Amino acid sequence: MRTIDWVDGKIRLIDQTRLPKEEVWLSLNTVEELAEAISSLRVRGAPALGVAGGLGVALAAQRARESSEDVGQAIVYAGSLLASTRPTAVNLKWGIERVKRVYDPAKPETADELVEQARAMVAEDEEINRLIGEVGAGLLEGGSRVLTHCNAGALACVAHGTALSIVEVAHERGLVAGVTATETRPLLQGSRLTAWELKRMGVPHRVTIDSGAASLIASGEIDVVVTGADRVAANGDVANKVGTYALALAAKASGVPFVVAAPLSTIDLETPDGSAIPIEERSASEVLEINGTRIAPEGTQAYNPAFDVTPASLISAIVTELGVVRPGVDDLRALIGPSQGTAKTGSSVEET
Amino acid sequence: MRTIDWVDGKIRLIDQTRLPKEEVWLSLNTVEELAEAISSLRVRGAPALGVAGGLGVALAAQRARESSEDVGQAIVYAGSLLASTRPTAVNLKWGIERVKRVYDPAKPETADELVEQARAMVAEDEEINRLIGEVGAGLLEGGSRVLTHCNAGALACVAHGTALSIVEVAHERGLVAGVTATETRPLLQGSRLTAWELKRMGVPHRVTIDSGAASLIASGEIDVVVTGADRVAANGDVANKVGTYALALAAKASGVPFVVAAPLSTIDLETPDGSAIPIEERSASEVLEINGTRIAPEGTQAYNPAFDVTPASLISAIVTELGVVRPGVDDLRALIGPSQGTAKTGSSVEET
Repeated sequence: MRTIDWVDGKIRLIDQTRLPKEEVWLSLNTVEELAEAISSLRVRGAPALGVAGGLGVALAAQRARESSEDVGQAIVYAGSLLASTRPTAVNLKWGIERVKRVYDPAKPETADELVEQARAMVAEDEEINRLIGEVGAGLLEGGSRVLTHCNAGALACVAHGTALSIVEVAHERGLVAGVTATETRPLLQGSRLTAWELKRMGVPHRVTIDSGAASLIASGEIDVVVTGADRVAANGDVANKVGTYALALAAKASGVPFVVAAPLSTIDLETPDGSAIPIEERSASEVLEINGTRIAPEGTQAYNPAFDVTPASLISAIVTELGVVRPGVDDLRALIGPSQGTAKTGSSVEET
Repeated sequence: MRTIDWVDGKIRLIDQTRLPKEEVWLSLNTVEELAEAISSLRVRGAPALGVAGGLGVALAAQRARESSEDVGQAIVYAGSLLASTRPTAVNLKWGIERVKRVYDPAKPETADELVEQARAMVAEDEEINRLIGEVGAGLLEGGSRVLTHCNAGALACVAHGTALSIVEVAHERGLVAGVTATETRPLLQGSRLTAWELKRMGVPHRVTIDSGAASLIASGEIDVVVTGADRVAANGDVANKVGTYALALAAKASGVPFVVAAPLSTIDLETPDGSAIPIEERSASEVLEINGTRIAPEGTQAYNPAFDVTPASLISAIVTELGVVRPGVDDLRALIGPSQGTAKTGSSVEET
């Protein structure tokens, strides 16, 4: 399942705001329609937004060519419009720029290549995530009871996901007894999205409140914890959805392996360690209101960090598309090489 | 503030279902009105339910005497009716029996003593909790930034609470810089009730999602974690609202003291350690639905334990009305003595 793709000259994507209740696929014909879809969170997740940005620029170029308008103007407009929908989304800008860069006004024939470039991004993302799944599934044993956090699945990417790609491949190999998904307050990506993906894969699964995970791990009912990553520092510290750190502490306390699925694009060798990663805070209303109804008293404040940092010492393995890195044993630099050492992501604010 | 009391021949209590939006006090004139209030969760929390049971029996006896009906019959009826409202609430039954026992049909004059006995329960609970606050506040230093979980406040008891009594006394002594309350999914007692109590006390406070607490502790912004207890085993292991264990792990990892406020009535010397405490599960709908709207896909299951067990090795101090016990250093048995060694509580199912 590709959750976002280029189909018949349009962008096809699944409307995540309708999940898990309904599976609605949208076919977007204009960059304005895509901008609305991004700002309404119909598409979310850092890798998916990167691809959406690239596809959006290609779409604008395509429409301009069909109506004999100026391609250069169309893609500048599309880039600005799309970037403004989620101003802090690093991947979105990265995807926009990657496709924009292909067009050279001095060579009008380069307009042919924009769609091709955007489709290459789709294919790359799919391939990287499938590889992560294959590498990571190699770490699992038969009958594995997996715990995962937030949504690091196909919905956040183009296909497969990162943590859920490992689950998907391991499930294909008959290694998964069941998956527990944390609900992931405040936005409940675990209950809404991960549970939906697991159901779709046919994996036996259940949801736990976030604070139920530690005792579940302690009870011996979990064999491995697998999460995604927003950014991996050079020393192997991992920034990911808030709550990841508490799961890693619980896993360590019970001797349960803690595995992080991270495409190379999330590894940032310029960040020496987790202390260099700023903790961004999101709106207090996400915590203090549910479905628009205020829970807490008027005047009560909230602490709502987007992510937290898990020290490398709590992480058993980081799974990338090129292989497994064991923090404290292997060196991330050796895996990537200095030329690739700058993350294109680095912000979890897209993770809504 | 007594959240439940005997006032002018009636039971007066705050309607917790209206909090934090409105502060509504109910004056209950019949045992049927009290039964409705208990089953609708207008009053909740183990100690508060114990007192409610006792006051309910006294109320029934009082009404019977006023209308010259049989007191013995009235209290048997009241006891059955009240006990049926929350069948698993151990404290409720304990409170009912304590007041019923006072009446001897062979000595009709004992009917005079029922109200007195119930009022003594109210006063005792208030005094015990105030003492816990005074003992516990002695552990805090100036400028303390406290983190607490769930609602271990006046609303769960008659007055002061347990963990929040420590905050209250420390605040009176000028020792509290601020309190962070975990929201406490699934029923959000932290956002709804603890925040309301802190606001009422005038303590600077904020709410965090449960899974934000660990990174907050790691960031150095918390000086002490203080929680209540549902049951304390003989070795100092503590059963409390689910999520407590994860907070204790985070506190230990960062060298932050983890303090449990526990009246002697929660210490159960007949339970050797935490492994002997069964983990009760509550309804899956609490996790899978919010305000009656389903979040997760149809068919998805949930894990919803009422509490978890925190090993004594993670607990810095257990604060009782008689003094502080440091697990691993002091012996709980020495504090209580064998005659008092049976908990009257022991179930967190009342903690809704």
